[in-house]
Amino acid sequence: MKKANKKLNAAIIVIGNEVLSGRTQDVNVLNISLWLNELGIKLEEVRIIPDIEKNIVNTINDVRKKFKYVFTTGGIGPTHDDITSKSISKAFKVKYCYHPEAYKILKNYYEKGKFNLGRKKMAKTPKTATLIYNPSSAAPGFFIKNVYCLPGVPSILKSMLGGLNNKLIGGKKIISNTLSLRTVESEISVPLEKVQKKYKNVEIGSYPFFKQGKLGVSLVLRSDNFTLIKKSRKEIMNFVKKKKIKIIMNN
Amino acid sequence: MKKANKKLNAAIIVIGNEVLSGRTQDVNVLNISLWLNELGIKLEEVRIIPDIEKNIVNTINDVRKKFKYVFTTGGIGPTHDDITSKSISKAFKVKYCYHPEAYKILKNYYEKGKFNLGRKKMAKTPKTATLIYNPSSAAPGFFIKNVYCLPGVPSILKSMLGGLNNKLIGGKKIISNTLSLRTVESEISVPLEKVQKKYKNVEIGSYPFFKQGKLGVSLVLRSDNFTLIKKSRKEIMNFVKKKKIKIIMNN
Repeated sequence: MKKANKKLNAAIIVIGNEVLSGRTQDVNVLNISLWLNELGIKLEEVRIIPDIEKNIVNTINDVRKKFKYVFTTGGIGPTHDDITSKSISKAFKVKYCYHPEAYKILKNYYEKGKFNLGRKKMAKTPKTATLIYNPSSAAPGFFIKNVYCLPGVPSILKSMLGGLNNKLIGGKKIISNTLSLRTVESEISVPLEKVQKKYKNVEIGSYPFFKQGKLGVSLVLRSDNFTLIKKSRKEIMNFVKKKKIKIIMNN
Repeated sequence: MKKANKKLNAAIIVIGNEVLSGRTQDVNVLNISLWLNELGIKLEEVRIIPDIEKNIVNTINDVRKKFKYVFTTGGIGPTHDDITSKSISKAFKVKYCYHPEAYKILKNYYEKGKFNLGRKKMAKTPKTATLIYNPSSAAPGFFIKNVYCLPGVPSILKSMLGGLNNKLIGGKKIISNTLSLRTVESEISVPLEKVQKKYKNVEIGSYPFFKQGKLGVSLVLRSDNFTLIKKSRKEIMNFVKKKKIKIIMNN
């Protein structure tokens, strides 16, 4: 993967009534996010929107200007509610038509006589799109400019991410360090804020938890600079020791 | 709950670096969505944004104009990264200050001498906000105009939803009907689209699945009109029988 020094960010647009209706618990955001961390690209916004053309067009055109990379999930299958490819063609004002390579891949994949209208639909993309190959079930995703369109089925989506590694310009890997304490947030909020103010390039998150009948707080330190993580953690450890707070986990 | 006839919609804004970083799998969207279905309010958009004041202010001011109800989750705790109340005050251009009732609730909740600065912070809201009571852990949420602010911890959030039922104007309950078939999407996409085009007030979703080594498709019919669901389902059943497709589940 190519490397870039400037800050790299991304957004995900989840296209799917099933997530909004509560039928489906989305897991694609989590999977894409963890993959982006490895590439040194920071996920900065997610939108979940319905299968409505106008909403998709407006959201794509709003988000693609704000972020280096935009990933969409869902809506590239064969049924009437799969309108991502068509909507993205509209957003970019390019023709929505058969992609010759996608058509060939799908024609070869299905038995003779089984390449029906629904399946042919999956070969349609915006005219100027480049394919993202699908090692699971043939039907490809695609990208056009900075918008990368992936399917909604999590196992298929995951299998397609690897093929994108060399197509994205990545940055320094984002490192995460977690410190779990036997305390409550309000006991540490004042000194913790001081550390955050001193180390602006480390994102310090504080997350209360309740496990096996006991309260605790996980502090998560994230940065692409490991030295800064170590320095800020040292200062946190200082007040943790001073307050005699038990450390549950430190990794 | 009061009833309204006009279309009622909602958006959720998830405020939290931990969801964007892949540390935490959000479940609040699902829980709020299922609760809104019961109230007859349709969730039409979700945004997941970082703990950054500017992003929160801009997102709130964009979204609150577009939807009848806006729910935020996260960022109302005691630590430096909990900036929802302050940011929402800014979005509405009202003072961010102690809410007398919240202050009283929290002061009574904690033992004498334990009501420290971090805990006091949880009594701060936009000046004109109304509290949403918290039966789990005292620290209240609040609402201001059409923006309802809830915590990020799922169990606490869930315990607070019931108290909102009488504060929202709801509509007719949204009914969902699922028909699972032993087929693949591309086999049914053409007749299914015809049914969708005929019944525009029924949202018909098609979701492929792979369970115990076998492929299938779930068709989900959603509407607040049960008669229309029954009619459209009957037409689906017609082509299902004609194509001799096995019905796995029908409820």
